[in-house]
Amino acid sequence: MAKDSRAYTLLLRLLAMAATISAAVVMATSHETTTIFSITIKAEFYQIPSFTFFVIANSISAAYSLLTLFLPPAGLMSRWLVVFDVMIAMLLTGALASAGSISQVGKKGNVHAGWLPICDEVSKYCNQVMAALISGFIGLLLYTIIVLHTITTELNPLLP
Amino acid sequence: MAKDSRAYTLLLRLLAMAATISAAVVMATSHETTTIFSITIKAEFYQIPSFTFFVIANSISAAYSLLTLFLPPAGLMSRWLVVFDVMIAMLLTGALASAGSISQVGKKGNVHAGWLPICDEVSKYCNQVMAALISGFIGLLLYTIIVLHTITTELNPLLP
Repeated sequence: MAKDSRAYTLLLRLLAMAATISAAVVMATSHETTTIFSITIKAEFYQIPSFTFFVIANSISAAYSLLTLFLPPAGLMSRWLVVFDVMIAMLLTGALASAGSISQVGKKGNVHAGWLPICDEVSKYCNQVMAALISGFIGLLLYTIIVLHTITTELNPLLP
Repeated sequence: MAKDSRAYTLLLRLLAMAATISAAVVMATSHETTTIFSITIKAEFYQIPSFTFFVIANSISAAYSLLTLFLPPAGLMSRWLVVFDVMIAMLLTGALASAGSISQVGKKGNVHAGWLPICDEVSKYCNQVMAALISGFIGLLLYTIIVLHTITTELNPLLP
């Protein structure tokens, strides 16, 4: 039972690592150069602070996921795993919410604030950002499952 | 010891409720009307989807905090408390990150996307949004402490 649970968590961590690496790489490689009225516009992820934060947060999560794969099953470090898992889940939530909100402004703009949508001009860039957000969402979902699984199986009062 | 821990958590929940109520109310009452070149501009929180989400998320958290104050110390419901606490902490993280990113654009703008800062025109509105964000941050901090406290004191493998 405990071995099954550990194999299940390891699989989830492996998938979460793949999702967060992919989110970071897809966001970091998103760029497009376009010309409007003979003005060249270059869109890169680092021009928007939220996207940079998204890349950093997903890279940290990917590195952490890799680390946890090599932890001994019941070592001293694994005691703190749940705490770190919760922190990573919150970090990924923040990164996704932050990048998601900005990309929403990029797609729809905001008429009240006078911010125009930019996705019509740089649609390839926007699509790649969207792909990164979806990958980041999958990573967050996996970490949420890991956290809830650990809490519900290992937390004392929850045991029947 | 267990009684002390419960009193401590109750105090944290009470403070978290105050912080999240205040965050929701301050954000929901933020508005300013200003005139630029004889054009009247009205800034309200609901014009920005992230700010609406911030109000909803903090209201949900405040209502949840109120509910948890009346839970019996060791009832069936309190078993699920940690799971819900983690969900609330993630909800507050998302709300703060989302509203924070947009208010950053409001304050600094983004020269690459052509989004102009609006806080010079509606500074009272921006200051109130900032106050709501600080209150929301305190609520998030308190929920993070609640989650980490519960996990480290109640999680089985962490007990010495």
